[in-house]
Amino acid sequence: MLRVGVIGYGYWGPNLVRNFHEARGCQVRMVCDLSADRLAQVKARYPAVQVTRRCEELLNSPELDAVAVATPVSTHFPLASAALQAGKHVLVEKPLADSSAHCRRLMDLAERKRRLLMVDHTFPYTGAVMKIKELIDSGALGRIYYYDSTRINLGLFQHDVSVIWDLAVHDLAICDFLLKEKPVAVSATGTAHVPNQPPNVAYLTLFFPNNIIGHINVNWLAPVKIRQTLISGSEKMVVYDDNQPTEKVKVYDKGITVKPSPENIYRLRVSYRAGDMLAPQVDGTEALRRLTEDFAECVETGRRPRTDAESGLRVVRVLEAATRSLNARGRLVHIRP
Amino acid sequence: MLRVGVIGYGYWGPNLVRNFHEARGCQVRMVCDLSADRLAQVKARYPAVQVTRRCEELLNSPELDAVAVATPVSTHFPLASAALQAGKHVLVEKPLADSSAHCRRLMDLAERKRRLLMVDHTFPYTGAVMKIKELIDSGALGRIYYYDSTRINLGLFQHDVSVIWDLAVHDLAICDFLLKEKPVAVSATGTAHVPNQPPNVAYLTLFFPNNIIGHINVNWLAPVKIRQTLISGSEKMVVYDDNQPTEKVKVYDKGITVKPSPENIYRLRVSYRAGDMLAPQVDGTEALRRLTEDFAECVETGRRPRTDAESGLRVVRVLEAATRSLNARGRLVHIRP
Amino acid sequence: MLRVGVIGYGYWGPNLVRNFHEARGCQVRMVCDLSADRLAQVKARYPAVQVTRRCEELLNSPELDAVAVATPVSTHFPLASAALQAGKHVLVEKPLADSSAHCRRLMDLAERKRRLLMVDHTFPYTGAVMKIKELIDSGALGRIYYYDSTRINLGLFQHDVSVIWDLAVHDLAICDFLLKEKPVAVSATGTAHVPNQPPNVAYLTLFFPNNIIGHINVNWLAPVKIRQTLISGSEKMVVYDDNQPTEKVKVYDKGITVKPSPENIYRLRVSYRAGDMLAPQVDGTEALRRLTEDFAECVETGRRPRTDAESGLRVVRVLEAATRSLNARGRLVHIRP
Amino acid sequence: MLRVGVIGYGYWGPNLVRNFHEARGCQVRMVCDLSADRLAQVKARYPAVQVTRRCEELLNSPELDAVAVATPVSTHFPLASAALQAGKHVLVEKPLADSSAHCRRLMDLAERKRRLLMVDHTFPYTGAVMKIKELIDSGALGRIYYYDSTRINLGLFQHDVSVIWDLAVHDLAICDFLLKEKPVAVSATGTAHVPNQPPNVAYLTLFFPNNIIGHINVNWLAPVKIRQTLISGSEKMVVYDDNQPTEKVKVYDKGITVKPSPENIYRLRVSYRAGDMLAPQVDGTEALRRLTEDFAECVETGRRPRTDAESGLRVVRVLEAATRSLNARGRLVHIRP
Repeated sequence: MLRVGVIGYGYWGPNLVRNFHEARGCQVRMVCDLSADRLAQVKARYPAVQVTRRCEELLNSPELDAVAVATPVSTHFPLASAALQAGKHVLVEKPLADSSAHCRRLMDLAERKRRLLMVDHTFPYTGAVMKIKELIDSGALGRIYYYDSTRINLGLFQHDVSVIWDLAVHDLAICDFLLKEKPVAVSATGTAHVPNQPPNVAYLTLFFPNNIIGHINVNWLAPVKIRQTLISGSEKMVVYDDNQPTEKVKVYDKGITVKPSPENIYRLRVSYRAGDMLAPQVDGTEALRRLTEDFAECVETGRRPRTDAESGLRVVRVLEAATRSLNARGRLVHIRP
Repeated sequence: MLRVGVIGYGYWGPNLVRNFHEARGCQVRMVCDLSADRLAQVKARYPAVQVTRRCEELLNSPELDAVAVATPVSTHFPLASAALQAGKHVLVEKPLADSSAHCRRLMDLAERKRRLLMVDHTFPYTGAVMKIKELIDSGALGRIYYYDSTRINLGLFQHDVSVIWDLAVHDLAICDFLLKEKPVAVSATGTAHVPNQPPNVAYLTLFFPNNIIGHINVNWLAPVKIRQTLISGSEKMVVYDDNQPTEKVKVYDKGITVKPSPENIYRLRVSYRAGDMLAPQVDGTEALRRLTEDFAECVETGRRPRTDAESGLRVVRVLEAATRSLNARGRLVHIRP
Repeated sequence: MLRVGVIGYGYWGPNLVRNFHEARGCQVRMVCDLSADRLAQVKARYPAVQVTRRCEELLNSPELDAVAVATPVSTHFPLASAALQAGKHVLVEKPLADSSAHCRRLMDLAERKRRLLMVDHTFPYTGAVMKIKELIDSGALGRIYYYDSTRINLGLFQHDVSVIWDLAVHDLAICDFLLKEKPVAVSATGTAHVPNQPPNVAYLTLFFPNNIIGHINVNWLAPVKIRQTLISGSEKMVVYDDNQPTEKVKVYDKGITVKPSPENIYRLRVSYRAGDMLAPQVDGTEALRRLTEDFAECVETGRRPRTDAESGLRVVRVLEAATRSLNARGRLVHIRP
Repeated sequence: MLRVGVIGYGYWGPNLVRNFHEARGCQVRMVCDLSADRLAQVKARYPAVQVTRRCEELLNSPELDAVAVATPVSTHFPLASAALQAGKHVLVEKPLADSSAHCRRLMDLAERKRRLLMVDHTFPYTGAVMKIKELIDSGALGRIYYYDSTRINLGLFQHDVSVIWDLAVHDLAICDFLLKEKPVAVSATGTAHVPNQPPNVAYLTLFFPNNIIGHINVNWLAPVKIRQTLISGSEKMVVYDDNQPTEKVKVYDKGITVKPSPENIYRLRVSYRAGDMLAPQVDGTEALRRLTEDFAECVETGRRPRTDAESGLRVVRVLEAATRSLNARGRLVHIRP
């Protein structure tokens, strides 16, 4: 039975607490937050859970095996470091840390302390993304052409990170999970419509090997909520709409066929094929349930989790590169492998 | 009665012929195309119209006052030049020409010959775009924040121009019509998934004065047809979905309010407002009908058409800059005013 | 080459003329309408076609092999009778006639004159309905449970027939084509919101053998256009949305499984299954093209058309019964086989 | 502080407990259910709440002021009777009882005991239905023409009541709240696709004074979930789609205008008008929260609740009449006022 403490009970923390509470092999023992009101909510819902406003109390508690960190991005590094130092296994809300240097230091520390360090990239644990992974790995989509995602809505404006670190991180984590190719360069643009605040609109183009291109459109200032991702391959094409209650994943048997033109040997003739559309049944288990159970199981068995610290680091490297590119208005920034 | 000849009866030509045929004040007298089959179709439908495979015959016909050019982009300049030289008024399908240099030479020639030169940017003549223009001009949207458009589908791959010149041109023409600010720089990315062919996927970010940002996502290789444009302002936000048979334009009384935070004077507090959504009734007249009648009327009165050669030139300048930027993988390219 | 004359160039007539004009094996020779304006339109579009305001001229023309009737319902019987008398093959727009007695008299006459009498039920010739027929006939849907259709929009109010004869007729024709069971009784309700006019809202319940139930909701006074039909079977369920440009037919691998309850032998336990959804590719050929070509081919070969006069009679019998039931506010009316 | 006991912790009970737990002026003190597992869930979530498997314990508890009944329909009458007898205020899940005779006996008892008897018709407390009520009462819709609702999905099959008592009851409660006219007769049809089970498909036509017609389509065996209601008036028309996360209520400025025809004095000419569509902002407060707070407030003040026992009785009278009509395959059944 993994005994877990959760730091941060704001937007995401309640989901972590609920899932660790209900997951097999886990037990929430303590929750830490700066707000007394929120701690009262914890007490009302989980009377057996201890609460504290002092994170040292949680970090040093001998009754905890693991700590989940669900606080603002800038605090991920110090809190996760302290938890690892205290000998805890650590799960950090996305992104793993606010810089790749911090990610690497956490990874080194986890290795030295022989503790599990995992990042909470939730999407790779959703039934929809798992189904798409299955389709790609089976070869059903053929050679991948592009990943193109729109993730926009009204709010929530963050003060310490841009919309890239808040929303594009989801798509980067999905790409990292789905594609064996990793982005080698990024061009990003965007702007801040609120003075002195981080950019609230951003557009990222990712360049991958094998002529795969990725694009991510993120926006905190949109009148409608859109969660739409297109993944096209040479054989089939997927539209993944996370807003739909059912039929989230649609697989189109569509594409092009390229042949030499009979009239002109220097010219190719493109023809179009269209066939059935299939919306496969998708497992509806809550992703965070799967993730928390994976965390617990990996602690027990030593197995690597799906969203390990390596993936956390790869994603943060792209976030850093995209931020630099956005500040230089689209200048290509290469990503170190 | 304006006597019109149409060159090119491929994809767009039939629409031009039909609209000139039915528009007030116009008459189609001759159609030129290289394909005998297509000319037979013209004859079957419009028995009174002359047909020819030799464009000189059309250009030199004394029975024509005006010529509409609906041929591949690379031929716009020579055909429009010849028509102006022959003393005809000229309407050219978008884009006006394949380079800004060619646009300027056509404009000079038109001025010298005292003939009307107009570009067929169809969208500014649609009821939906006219309604959005009305909302912007009335101040209902407030200060404009961004224009963000997705224009994707399967096909039609072009051989002589990229998807930017084929599809993004529509959004550039809409922006040119809607916004008094003109883009000052562009960063574009994209790729070609068919070897030795022009890019079939492209992403453009446009930088405007006053912190307005534009983004255009165009794609010939998408499993679904999307025609969705978001235009956000400080007061209201528009979603324009050209695929909808009705309710194409939705106006959301939504946005953010920015106030100094009571807790932290260096930090702003963003709050969100949400009100009614209005889908105004939109005039359903075919846009090309309005455009052809505007052409005829401008020839008669000397008035400037809505999509004059100046707008055609401005749009081509952005197309050129976007092409250069795409080739340099997102490098910022400034646009000469 | 079947030489066809068309009577009536109002709402549906132009579609008939266009399709007979373009169909293989047919030729439109003459069009009759009371309105000179409409005949001028015919002339403008089809200069080779003769026009007349006197239907006797068309009916007696020795140059015609067949006549298509696209006039108000009450005139179907006299016009089709006269055409058959004159030795023509006859295609009548739905419904075949304004009463089953009239249908039978037309059928007798056709038999005596050895001429083809066919009704234009267009939907059985659509790719979508043909695909559903294929699914039912192959057994993929299992035992049929119900047919439930909503066919509503704003307008067009008819003056001589109710919304049942105008819109429900489509669903009755689809049911007649899809299901080998024929309705044995009907209960209908509805009302007229415009005084002294026929009912503009109606609801029909059809009782079939084998516990199949049918329901049709038709309305001329609805704010939105809906064309949605559900066809459920014991194995799979179909949703057919004719408004969609693509993915009109969706096949859901969903249903119930009924088992005796372990706790209570008198009670059944119902459990639910949900699997993939498939939207099969549907042939997009215009239905009326297929229908007109079928008409021509059946004239030539003597084969029975898909929507023969028998089907026209069966549909009119249900229309009559439904009208009687509606007037008696839902009273069950049996349908003679 | 109203001290509440809840009987039944199956499908709806957990919602009642949660809302009474969080509502102002209320406190859940005891929950009764036959299943020990469910009671364990109550304990895990609400450690302060007492649980029991014996409903007498709850009914006779001196610590309770009110009892909420969320059990199968056939038990509503005995449980609500016993609770009133024990001097409790009573809230009964819809429908109020399994017969109008039982409803009246409960009402008599409540009056004798001077206790509040309220039925939990949830929809009249939703923001969407309240907004529609506002539109009707303000006269914005004009004279009402019809109410037409489709409420279908897969499951949950009930064993003791038909789909009419389970799903149509919602629409009857909405109609009762929205319209001052009450139905005077009903024609219903339907069938059971599972042998020896109650009907799982049903269609109700309601006849109201003033030529208003109502129609309700309910189905437990549909592949998709639809919750769509059209309410048309002489001035405007509403489409209410409860499945939508936002824009649930759309108000169409559409309709017909009826004028004498200039050509034919015995004939009316119908013309169509189409204007803007407005989706008003709708209050998103959970309906059951409002309902539970209304219950508590009405107990305290003696005010009548929105969904009082009278409305519960009116709805049950229609349910009874519809059941009789369905069994007689659509025969018109009058409803006693």
